[in-house]
Amino acid sequence: MSTPAYDDQNIFAKILRGEMPCHKVYEDSKTLVIMDIMPRGDGHVLVIPKAPSRNILDIAEDDLNAMMATVQKMARAVVKAFGADGTTIQQFSEPAGGQVVFHTHFHVIPRFEGVSLKPHTGEMADNDLLAEHSEKIKAALA
Amino acid sequence: MSTPAYDDQNIFAKILRGEMPCHKVYEDSKTLVIMDIMPRGDGHVLVIPKAPSRNILDIAEDDLNAMMATVQKMARAVVKAFGADGTTIQQFSEPAGGQVVFHTHFHVIPRFEGVSLKPHTGEMADNDLLAEHSEKIKAALA
Repeated sequence: MSTPAYDDQNIFAKILRGEMPCHKVYEDSKTLVIMDIMPRGDGHVLVIPKAPSRNILDIAEDDLNAMMATVQKMARAVVKAFGADGTTIQQFSEPAGGQVVFHTHFHVIPRFEGVSLKPHTGEMADNDLLAEHSEKIKAALA
Repeated sequence: MSTPAYDDQNIFAKILRGEMPCHKVYEDSKTLVIMDIMPRGDGHVLVIPKAPSRNILDIAEDDLNAMMATVQKMARAVVKAFGADGTTIQQFSEPAGGQVVFHTHFHVIPRFEGVSLKPHTGEMADNDLLAEHSEKIKAALA
């Protein structure tokens, strides 16, 4: 398998260019964090590097390191924001790996004792609830 | 939640000290890669930083970066070794997050079109098969 070329018409590229809305949680010079609109649990966020790359197979070292610093920051923040008992982190590369949007991203999901991840149904979460969760995480980061 | 202290009696600490056997795939100054003995798919490896940390909530930045460089190297290697169509990467923190061994580790799993991840049954894989898969990945790294 050779990794296909990056396509800048993917949803995250559009969000990064401000062409699509998002529930922004955090931003620094190299990364953006948004709420997953089809969350597998309350507080499920996506960490996205600003530079173009398709997935773990082609991302540059600098962008990967910047993304992971933000992943760690978000793991700590969602635990604090939701009083979570742990976190699950996932990254999918290529369709066989579970990837749906072809701009590199890490999932950070707060986890709670006895609560399974919801299946990935493709159902959109309530916008007001996503906005509320985003504010909760921002407060934990402050 | 505050992250519990690191306990050096966990299985990966014992493997790092040479007190327990493993199917070693790769090693550098800061990381070790071994076959998961309860793989969720052929070629499922674990990337382990050598320095002690419990999970994403307490790992030092240097160790996280070193681990991710090895995660990327292994993602590319397992795709090459098995002719895979993609990869799935997972990291679990604390029992609620899915963590079973309390030394930080990332799962790197080669994925194939139409093949789901096997459930985590707790069943051990055949030792000869793990050794064969380990050699395949080493050859892809060479």
